[in-house]
Amino acid sequence: MAVLPPNVSERNFRKALDAFADIVGKEWVFTTEDELKGYLDPFAPDDAEKHAASAAIAAMSVEEIQKILEVARHYKIPLWTVACGKNHGYGGAAPRMKGSVVLDLKRMNKVIEVNETLGYAVVEPGVSFFQLYDYIEQHGIKLWMSLPAPGWGSVMGNALDRGIGYTPYGENTLHVCGMEIVLADGEVIRTGMGAMNDTKTWHLYRYGFGPSWDQVFMQSNFGIVTKIGIWLMPEPEATATASITFPNESDLPQIIDIARPLRLGQTVNSTIVVANAIRRLASSGSREEYFTGDGAMPDDLVNKIMKEKGWNFWEATISFFDDEDVIDARLKAVEKAFKQIPGSTFEAKRWKRGEPIENSAKPRPNLIAYQVINWRGGRGGHIGFAPIVAPLGSEATRVYSLMKKRVAQYGFDYFGGFTFFQRHTIHTSLLIFDQDDPKMKKNAFDLFDTVVREAATMGFGEYRTHVAWMDLIASEYNFNDNAMLRLNERFKDMIDPEGILAPGKQGIWPRSLRKNHGGEKI
Amino acid sequence: MAVLPPNVSERNFRKALDAFADIVGKEWVFTTEDELKGYLDPFAPDDAEKHAASAAIAAMSVEEIQKILEVARHYKIPLWTVACGKNHGYGGAAPRMKGSVVLDLKRMNKVIEVNETLGYAVVEPGVSFFQLYDYIEQHGIKLWMSLPAPGWGSVMGNALDRGIGYTPYGENTLHVCGMEIVLADGEVIRTGMGAMNDTKTWHLYRYGFGPSWDQVFMQSNFGIVTKIGIWLMPEPEATATASITFPNESDLPQIIDIARPLRLGQTVNSTIVVANAIRRLASSGSREEYFTGDGAMPDDLVNKIMKEKGWNFWEATISFFDDEDVIDARLKAVEKAFKQIPGSTFEAKRWKRGEPIENSAKPRPNLIAYQVINWRGGRGGHIGFAPIVAPLGSEATRVYSLMKKRVAQYGFDYFGGFTFFQRHTIHTSLLIFDQDDPKMKKNAFDLFDTVVREAATMGFGEYRTHVAWMDLIASEYNFNDNAMLRLNERFKDMIDPEGILAPGKQGIWPRSLRKNHGGEKI
Repeated sequence: MAVLPPNVSERNFRKALDAFADIVGKEWVFTTEDELKGYLDPFAPDDAEKHAASAAIAAMSVEEIQKILEVARHYKIPLWTVACGKNHGYGGAAPRMKGSVVLDLKRMNKVIEVNETLGYAVVEPGVSFFQLYDYIEQHGIKLWMSLPAPGWGSVMGNALDRGIGYTPYGENTLHVCGMEIVLADGEVIRTGMGAMNDTKTWHLYRYGFGPSWDQVFMQSNFGIVTKIGIWLMPEPEATATASITFPNESDLPQIIDIARPLRLGQTVNSTIVVANAIRRLASSGSREEYFTGDGAMPDDLVNKIMKEKGWNFWEATISFFDDEDVIDARLKAVEKAFKQIPGSTFEAKRWKRGEPIENSAKPRPNLIAYQVINWRGGRGGHIGFAPIVAPLGSEATRVYSLMKKRVAQYGFDYFGGFTFFQRHTIHTSLLIFDQDDPKMKKNAFDLFDTVVREAATMGFGEYRTHVAWMDLIASEYNFNDNAMLRLNERFKDMIDPEGILAPGKQGIWPRSLRKNHGGEKI
Repeated sequence: MAVLPPNVSERNFRKALDAFADIVGKEWVFTTEDELKGYLDPFAPDDAEKHAASAAIAAMSVEEIQKILEVARHYKIPLWTVACGKNHGYGGAAPRMKGSVVLDLKRMNKVIEVNETLGYAVVEPGVSFFQLYDYIEQHGIKLWMSLPAPGWGSVMGNALDRGIGYTPYGENTLHVCGMEIVLADGEVIRTGMGAMNDTKTWHLYRYGFGPSWDQVFMQSNFGIVTKIGIWLMPEPEATATASITFPNESDLPQIIDIARPLRLGQTVNSTIVVANAIRRLASSGSREEYFTGDGAMPDDLVNKIMKEKGWNFWEATISFFDDEDVIDARLKAVEKAFKQIPGSTFEAKRWKRGEPIENSAKPRPNLIAYQVINWRGGRGGHIGFAPIVAPLGSEATRVYSLMKKRVAQYGFDYFGGFTFFQRHTIHTSLLIFDQDDPKMKKNAFDLFDTVVREAATMGFGEYRTHVAWMDLIASEYNFNDNAMLRLNERFKDMIDPEGILAPGKQGIWPRSLRKNHGGEKI
């Protein structure tokens, strides 16, 4: 045993593992270093062993999960549930607390239903974007998915961690409708209309009767979600993807202030991405082609490269999914609005039903996004800094200026921009590092730690984070002496009194482990 | 004292009232029959005294509420919170449990902020639709509200009870973003991004970091909501309201099946109302002009009246809020789709910016909806039967047939139809009765009770209900031995151990009063 769960003797741990093996079969209990390697954070910005699992179990059903919980409660074994385990940039499959046992649900990968008439799918945790996409294609179903950048992740896991996509359904969490959850005591609940037997409306109406619990079981450690309904978009008649570029760094506030009313008034009803040129550069090559010096790439050099490539500083990408004549009108309005910025360019790629699907804005899962992590050479890694920012030019400038300054200070290039929803943006900035360069890795860690703290003093809070910063960020949600965290803790102690589910996730610790509030890490 | 709270002595009750008076001032504690009349259900389908309050207190601030809670915990006084107290059809201001003290928040009626740039308002509980509308008009703010039929209700109360409107923002509860809540122990929490001090994003991003609690404090008795952010729609360039009629009762399934893909694909992005001719008839007159016999109005007679008036059996109403050229395209698509139904008619009323606002689809609060309750003469009353129904012709037919048959059996006319959202409909059917006719009133009660039970066996669950049926409907959400209700009860006992907040609301009773599960009413 390289690692044990905290406060569990080796003897009891072995007994628990035997009991787990009786439930799922010996071949689905993993304990060797080799077997557990896949549960380490592949992009750890720190020592990956700080979040090492003591074992992993791969369950197949709700019944197995209920039995596993019984054993875990008995021996006080902490379980860190993962779906496909691809939460890269946020820890991958690695648990928050060292020594947790990973409860791996990737074998629970049934597509239970795809309802074309009513526009939804019902999936188990292990269903990846690739898998659901293939299922939909194979059955000739005219529904489109909302996808994050890489396609190997879990549809459910992504939605529960409030991941995003780039269609009108881009807030994935908002399109979850109806969940099945196993509580720590083995009780199974179904949320919304699923709380009624034999209803046809479980995946159609979000709330049911009385309090609605779905969002309490997202980004939390209060239960194990075993099934969700997720809404899918009917295939539109046509699509368009507009690429709009802007020459100057200083155009940022105006871009945001122009995009805001377009998004608010639903002229644009899907996710707008505003990104800088380095992000584009990193998608098509390696940094050493351009720069091998110390520190961040100098602004002059970046400008020179942009000029050579004929690129502008910022690029906004906007997709439309609608009837053809409506898209005509939308594109006209969007082009007109952005034209106010001198030197901007506008280009739109159109598609309509019948034309080759490759030319459409239909999201198709892939792993292309991973090209960028080779930007710094070696084995690439990344962490994402992702605070929620009001869609105001002034606010965007505040967070951009902070980040631009700090990344340069720590020897990184600013890589990112703003992902735009109806009333909020996520400032998305990736710190890309070479995992084999310990100094660069330490710089990435220190930089992230610094900006997360500094951003909080400026009123910016992350919407999601890497396991290593969950305590810090939870502590920054500080209204009324962290009243929200204290509510979460009260609920945690009630719903999971043995504290076996994902201790420390999102900063929520069970009573027995709560000594480490304020950032000290187990 | 006509009524006392259960298990509270008259002596202690008087002490509590004195303590309340010390907090809010003697003039804001109501105890006489005359003062309490306004807290009885004005449309009670049963004896209004079954839901009589023992007293009412009108608080002015969070601090007063905290002090009131302290007294209530001490003397175990049940508090039933109301905002404007106009939840008509569902009990008005009357508490679920007889003898509860109404905590009346209509004095907390500050419009805290209306942010035109970002499209939201922040309001206290007592702000009515009328008041917020006037505020917006007076300040020349170009934001439009989503309104339920009558305008005197509370913006917050309506959203918390999951009320609806008729614009793209028609699911009012979905447009709540950021709440302030006082828990039973006096603790104040702010949800979403409000959990962080000094953020500008409280009313822009729904979830914050970690579990998101907003929906748990809606339709529940877990806390007292003192502030919400609610999103408002920017004024569109143009509007249109289409009225589409269909000649035959039997057209219903086809209407639903045509409307479904239009709504799902967002060709129509606001609430569609499909209603029968009697609903229209009741808006413009009294039943006795047409029929004075026993039982329901015969189908033949209804058909005759329709013919005379030149009406069709069903009418669908759809509003559009968008750019003018987009509305052109949308109307064309909608007209084409419904034309498939023989004998249908299509008419659209257009408006664009600059024209008189009266000609637009802009929702303006009024009390016109109340005309219909005089349909049966005397002092009119109503109860609403409102199950969630899948937007499938076959499902709509199932619930319509049930209701049509049962209303006739009990001597009522079918008055209602379907309110259509993106993936669900609410079958909305109003039982209108003459409060001064005891037999008719009893029939209305028995009819409602019958259909709620019968609908549940068919898989239809209400999304909201009158206080008298909360236990019954909660019991019908019966998956896994009412697992959802049991979760609500566990949470109730943790968050409100003295059981002082709205006992019985939505079927959720505190431990001390839980004897009456299964429908027996206190």
